Amino acid sequence: MAQKPKWVVGKERERRAAANATVWLFGLHAVRDALENPMRERLRLVVTRNAADRLGDAVARSGLEPEIADPRRFPVPLDPGSVHQGAALEAKPLDWGRLEDVADPGGARPPRLVLLDRVTDPHNVGAILRSAEVFGARAVVAPSRHAAPETGALAKSASGALERQPYLRVGNLGDAMERLRAMGYETVGMDGEAPETLDEAAPQVADRPVALVLGAEGPGLRERTRALCDRMVRIDPAGAFGSLNVSNAAAVALHALRR
Amino acid sequence: MAQKPKWVVGKERERRAAANATVWLFGLHAVRDALENPMRERLRLVVTRNAADRLGDAVARSGLEPEIADPRRFPVPLDPGSVHQGAALEAKPLDWGRLEDVADPGGARPPRLVLLDRVTDPHNVGAILRSAEVFGARAVVAPSRHAAPETGALAKSASGALERQPYLRVGNLGDAMERLRAMGYETVGMDGEAPETLDEAAPQVADRPVALVLGAEGPGLRERTRALCDRMVRIDPAGAFGSLNVSNAAAVALHALRR
Repeated sequence: MAQKPKWVVGKERERRAAANATVWLFGLHAVRDALENPMRERLRLVVTRNAADRLGDAVARSGLEPEIADPRRFPVPLDPGSVHQGAALEAKPLDWGRLEDVADPGGARPPRLVLLDRVTDPHNVGAILRSAEVFGARAVVAPSRHAAPETGALAKSASGALERQPYLRVGNLGDAMERLRAMGYETVGMDGEAPETLDEAAPQVADRPVALVLGAEGPGLRERTRALCDRMVRIDPAGAFGSLNVSNAAAVALHALRR
Repeated sequence: MAQKPKWVVGKERERRAAANATVWLFGLHAVRDALENPMRERLRLVVTRNAADRLGDAVARSGLEPEIADPRRFPVPLDPGSVHQGAALEAKPLDWGRLEDVADPGGARPPRLVLLDRVTDPHNVGAILRSAEVFGARAVVAPSRHAAPETGALAKSASGALERQPYLRVGNLGDAMERLRAMGYETVGMDGEAPETLDEAAPQVADRPVALVLGAEGPGLRERTRALCDRMVRIDPAGAFGSLNVSNAAAVALHALRR
């Protein structure tokens, strides 16, 4: 029997790891949102009496038997400082399907995607999911490694958007960009030093499928990511100094692309 | 001798407290920025040997005698989890002067301000300072109480903008709005349920001094704040759900107002 190539083995290992991975979502809002999401595979619900009362019907409708916990000894492995409000839900990450399906350029409006190159801060990714939802982007796409995992902290920052807005993890961001370009997407990288401004570029790509590509603050886009961008744009600062937080840059760009 | 009215006593107490207040800034970037800011009154610099080397000239030029600390016992009162990178600076909050001077509507371009009604999260306020700088807003204005204090966490999120972008604290936000309106400002409140969209409003106020007013997520604007807004605008969601993070909403609005 022929041996499987290394990359296939790697992919299979990743897929198995993903299938086994679970996340603890916490906080009343995040837990209620996840309980009410029929796509969310739920494993364990741990709540204080008080939180159980406040979640009320959502618990009943979920069909889960809640484990009632003592608020002083909340038996869930959360990071210190996590404001759980007496509610935590162990769940599987959502399965948003294949990039090709999510990004399919058919439909009335040219689709928008947000691609994140090693943006690891969960607060930023949470805020980006919210903006993606508000501005109607199809998905936020990030590599399976070196990206913010779907944790409770991300869910909290996403304020419900994690349950509704596709957050798609791909094995390799560069490969995903190549596939998107083959599907007709214009890949638009953001960089403070880019030659073209967002406001100049936006009307030129308005009628095309667009994948916005943002990197982590500091390192920015990696070399291959940058090479796979059809154009690079900047948000022009009014003065000599300053740069936007990555989630703010994403929001401004998504808004500019909608007009 | 006549007794001072209560509000005068309160104001004086606030002013004394502000004069005595100090903040600990931390992290290599934030400390370097503060060391290089001639407006920043600096009190104590605590650094590890390694951080002292990395800050190099900035320490020498500041004229401060650094206290060298053991990295394993960093002797500074920071919140747990603060990534100080071996550098902390005790300093006074910056004094940005009077609202009337900062907001003076003279000048080539109509000024923009960002007013924050009880936005207490330092990460959001830090990101808003960055956006205010990038989009050329004169200042971010917040009440002296119930706002994010000028802490190390805020400085870190502001990524240098705290040293350059006025963050003005006022005794009472409503009073500040009345003064701004008397100076010719249009006060524009943001609210997801507002009748007018940002994109409709932006061209109508383009030539006027504008004070954008944003509230905390959840409670939104307080009643008096809302009553003092000349108009209320919303950022229209593409679908039925979702809302922007407050710093993302501020960035989108500042960008829309610049065009």
